[in-house]
Amino acid sequence: MLILGIDPGVATVGFGLIEAQRGRNRLIQYGTITTPAGIPLSDRLLQLHRDMGELLELFHPEEVAVEELFFSKNITTGIAVAHGRGVLLLAVAERGIPVFEYTPMQVKQSVVGYGKAEKRQVMDMTRRLLHMDAIPRPDDAADALALAICHARAATSLINTDRRFDARKYDTR
Amino acid sequence: MLILGIDPGVATVGFGLIEAQRGRNRLIQYGTITTPAGIPLSDRLLQLHRDMGELLELFHPEEVAVEELFFSKNITTGIAVAHGRGVLLLAVAERGIPVFEYTPMQVKQSVVGYGKAEKRQVMDMTRRLLHMDAIPRPDDAADALALAICHARAATSLINTDRRFDARKYDTR
Repeated sequence: MLILGIDPGVATVGFGLIEAQRGRNRLIQYGTITTPAGIPLSDRLLQLHRDMGELLELFHPEEVAVEELFFSKNITTGIAVAHGRGVLLLAVAERGIPVFEYTPMQVKQSVVGYGKAEKRQVMDMTRRLLHMDAIPRPDDAADALALAICHARAATSLINTDRRFDARKYDTR
Repeated sequence: MLILGIDPGVATVGFGLIEAQRGRNRLIQYGTITTPAGIPLSDRLLQLHRDMGELLELFHPEEVAVEELFFSKNITTGIAVAHGRGVLLLAVAERGIPVFEYTPMQVKQSVVGYGKAEKRQVMDMTRRLLHMDAIPRPDDAADALALAICHARAATSLINTDRRFDARKYDTR
């Protein structure tokens, strides 16, 4: 199964694409979509939506994993990220691709085996699991790959045990 | 000039369309776009984006006014609203329509003449300025009409004085 992980944002969106088969994950592609600062937000949203659309048309992922949005740190950044996340989810929904969301703690638990793991540990384990020579850069892309691995493991456990996904399908209330 | 005011949201989006000419405002249409609770957020975003697109195709507004987003009250609602606002701004940007944003205080100042006016005062003045028999319902639609009036006045002052818009064009940083 082809899984796309997305680390949402407005300035930088990380993406990571993996092929998950029988508990094994193969790296397909990773990188970032960026938009220039200093242009109106609506134009940045236009670019994000178009670029994510092109990415989806190019790779045709079967399922998408995104990070659940928390606003613990900077509220102004959070507002912008949520705008970006909206148009990214739209691009996915327009193609009928199912979206699953995970908390940072779920990603750490799944990738490292410990919900309070350091960011560095998550990145290093992501590198190992995908047989990469170096830790993927930038951080946004590494986060997206970790999300994809997290979903691959939730999905695999479904196949193995015929249980429902641990992942909650994204919903507002 | 045909101006569309938008009060953004996910469950309910208010819209109000007015024709502004030489300091006079004429009501064209108002109402809400709603999405059902209990379906995934990405499906609600899909509906919002489609319905706003249809509205824009139907009326072809020349400029759009939206409320600046504040997260003073409920942060969870704020996250959802920002997602919705993202796809609404996208629908507008896809058609090349300029977007202007105003704070609640700017709307009150413009419509009532007093930045700390009560919500009720804003609604009543909106009704009067648009020669309506009753206060427009629901609140979201009334808010959208007040935004449109606020922008009409800012735009008119531009025409009259050849100054720049008071309205800031939306940008993140």
